[in-house]
Amino acid sequence: MTQLEDERETRPIAHCESAAIDRAIGALTAAFGNRVVTSRAVREQHGHTTTWIANEPPDAVVFPQCTEDVQQIVRICAAHGVPVIPFGVGTSLEGQINAPRGGVSIDVRDMNQVLAVHAEDLDCVVQPGVTRKQLNEYLRDQGLFFPLDPGADASLGGMAATRASGTNAVRYGTMKDCVLALKAVLANGEVLSTGGRAKKSSAGYDLARLFIGSEGTLGVITELTLKLHGIPEAIASGVCPFPSVEAACNAVIMTIQTGLPVARIELLDEVQVKAANAYSKLSLPEVPVLFVEFHGTEAEVAEQSERFGEIAAEFNGGPFDWATRPEDRTRLWQARHDAYWAACALRPGSKVFVSDVCVPISRLAECIVATQRDLAESRLVSPIVGHVGDGNFHLCLLIDMDDPGEVSRGEALLGRLVERALAMDGTCTGEHGVGQGKMKYLDHELGPAAVDAMRAVKQALDPQGIMNPGKIVACP
Amino acid sequence: MTQLEDERETRPIAHCESAAIDRAIGALTAAFGNRVVTSRAVREQHGHTTTWIANEPPDAVVFPQCTEDVQQIVRICAAHGVPVIPFGVGTSLEGQINAPRGGVSIDVRDMNQVLAVHAEDLDCVVQPGVTRKQLNEYLRDQGLFFPLDPGADASLGGMAATRASGTNAVRYGTMKDCVLALKAVLANGEVLSTGGRAKKSSAGYDLARLFIGSEGTLGVITELTLKLHGIPEAIASGVCPFPSVEAACNAVIMTIQTGLPVARIELLDEVQVKAANAYSKLSLPEVPVLFVEFHGTEAEVAEQSERFGEIAAEFNGGPFDWATRPEDRTRLWQARHDAYWAACALRPGSKVFVSDVCVPISRLAECIVATQRDLAESRLVSPIVGHVGDGNFHLCLLIDMDDPGEVSRGEALLGRLVERALAMDGTCTGEHGVGQGKMKYLDHELGPAAVDAMRAVKQALDPQGIMNPGKIVACP
Repeated sequence: MTQLEDERETRPIAHCESAAIDRAIGALTAAFGNRVVTSRAVREQHGHTTTWIANEPPDAVVFPQCTEDVQQIVRICAAHGVPVIPFGVGTSLEGQINAPRGGVSIDVRDMNQVLAVHAEDLDCVVQPGVTRKQLNEYLRDQGLFFPLDPGADASLGGMAATRASGTNAVRYGTMKDCVLALKAVLANGEVLSTGGRAKKSSAGYDLARLFIGSEGTLGVITELTLKLHGIPEAIASGVCPFPSVEAACNAVIMTIQTGLPVARIELLDEVQVKAANAYSKLSLPEVPVLFVEFHGTEAEVAEQSERFGEIAAEFNGGPFDWATRPEDRTRLWQARHDAYWAACALRPGSKVFVSDVCVPISRLAECIVATQRDLAESRLVSPIVGHVGDGNFHLCLLIDMDDPGEVSRGEALLGRLVERALAMDGTCTGEHGVGQGKMKYLDHELGPAAVDAMRAVKQALDPQGIMNPGKIVACP
Repeated sequence: MTQLEDERETRPIAHCESAAIDRAIGALTAAFGNRVVTSRAVREQHGHTTTWIANEPPDAVVFPQCTEDVQQIVRICAAHGVPVIPFGVGTSLEGQINAPRGGVSIDVRDMNQVLAVHAEDLDCVVQPGVTRKQLNEYLRDQGLFFPLDPGADASLGGMAATRASGTNAVRYGTMKDCVLALKAVLANGEVLSTGGRAKKSSAGYDLARLFIGSEGTLGVITELTLKLHGIPEAIASGVCPFPSVEAACNAVIMTIQTGLPVARIELLDEVQVKAANAYSKLSLPEVPVLFVEFHGTEAEVAEQSERFGEIAAEFNGGPFDWATRPEDRTRLWQARHDAYWAACALRPGSKVFVSDVCVPISRLAECIVATQRDLAESRLVSPIVGHVGDGNFHLCLLIDMDDPGEVSRGEALLGRLVERALAMDGTCTGEHGVGQGKMKYLDHELGPAAVDAMRAVKQALDPQGIMNPGKIVACP
């Protein structure tokens, strides 16, 4: 246990009584028939599968088709004191979908309808199982798009629940900025609605923002009203190599400070570039690179790209290679999105220790360089990729789980990464969320008053503690 | 009582026991000496003074100088069960600063330091008593500005507490978007901190957003970390007359739909233009006008203004008169900011019934035109002004309080305005907040599950009910 870890947040929690679970599954089966699944394979798919965090499968998986189904599931589980764990497509990285106390996974796969598109108001209403790619396919004919893009084809419900962001957030914000309103089923089975489609509101506490990032611990999101944007008239993407990570970061910092409205600005360090060349069949120079994209009118994009080229040159970056053909752009961004898989392929058989931190942009270069030094000194391999326009970057430590020394060096390095980010006035997670993996850091980052306030809110809305227990804050 | 009003939200609440208040004031005086004021004049200034809502003065006003002072005040009040009401500069419009149960007003006037400016990260840290004009004066030499502008020179603490916005919000967002982090003193006297200066975070519940718009009912904001922007290279403002409010609204709708990044787009209807001409010595054509502003590079501003001119012409608007000289721009926007005072001067001696609603932009023209018709049929006078790029507009009903028929016609009209906005999927308040004036509408807008959730959160963080009671949600 590191000095950052709070003992209360790390002790194991008791599994739910198995007789209660059996009764709940019986009642669910009576109501939902073969939409309740208890096979081991399906249950394991609904526990955590993406990183080093252990798989903790639920006892059953239910597939609701509408908000009323979710209400009924929650009411049945509440009656038996059984946990419910919302599930989108399972791409979260910090154990958000695990069932440490057992319980019922609510998989919103079949709640995948786009309920309305209000093109004139630049918004739409979707069920939580709609994925971001599905939504953008649906919208394309209307000249609209939903900008947030965490890489994975995540469900929009899951993205809201974890306050996801990804590329494009530097310009369009995170899920907290892109959701106008939502509906959620509360622990008492009631449906909470946070409001209408007005672009802004001061009508009481901001319940939408409270639920965005609450990771299913306060309720199950069953509907989202999302802000949309017109597909830009012009898009230009470019790749720019730099002599060092520091030079690349400094170019990013200046880009942001001068107010250049970059839509995406992504760093791949030399390790990630090697991985991407191998995995995605690219032929990038194996040095740190920035992937950059601008959105606007033809004139704006031309002006912005010229200004970015000047900034890059100031830090000895370049040449600046532009791809304006859609198929070239797609290939480039596909490679960026496949960074995780490319990283995994660097060392087959290893487990991935993922972490994302976020720091004020002025500290970005320093934070990444210190982390690279730490990696070298710890004899560990990790590509670094980042949504660097927001000061946010990711590690994908590739760990041989059969080597206890390597495992403990990896754990210690991730602890130091968080300490480093916090010392720079940053956060332990920019976009992956807390889940199980980062509960131990919250107290150190925010202090006991904030964590106690979160616990009080959690207990007020979920007095039985059945909503995705064992995530974000521990409750007795 | 209209059909919208919930009886629970409208019944009077009991005044705090006077012996308890005396004891609290004694303890405060022992601790803070002459920074505790109980004179009637000062107390009345610290109750509501801006609209028809009755003045309900606190029993004492205290002037803290730092977060620790606020902690001590709250602890003393909590020990005696006495309400505390945070006070910025008193420009709120829905009774947020009133003391319906009596208690102690915490005036943050002396907490007016800019604590840090991180120019390289485009953020700053301020105490809550800093006003927006003061901050912008402070920042100007560094080429930075804080964009939000509700008209009044409000305190930033008050703006955060009411989730204010105003002109510029159409481009830069509201206080929910412009605050990176905050500190607040909770009902138990502890200081809650919501995090560091990272541009984004997924570290647990979004407590910053929970406190923004909570109107002092969850805690007293004592520090804010704000996002800043570089002062644009070029600013161009223009006034554009239209043949009708509908034509002006349609031009606004198209401006937003085409993604033109307008920084401000404000409607003044013909009544408000007459008032502004008289009050601010302008000579505008007495028809509906839009005040418009663009921020960007010289090239961007030129391109955007040209495109706006084309849109206006499509709806028979124009000629489009541009003011690029700073002094002309200032005069124009001063007139816009003085709209409230200009409205009051239209009918001296009358009381102002203010309301702001916000609707999806596609419904804006319809909502305003129906409201104008309702005004005419009700024989009532009200200018209409609005941050129309967000679908947000304001009424300033000028009511002769000695004419009971007029008062009741005014109340009924405001009720219908809210009904109309809600029927269009809008909100009862875009930016003024709930305070006392709009508690009765929340249940109808959001439904009982949301209002009950707000009450549960309030009671979890303030079990004694001492934090600005009688605002937003009624608690037993």
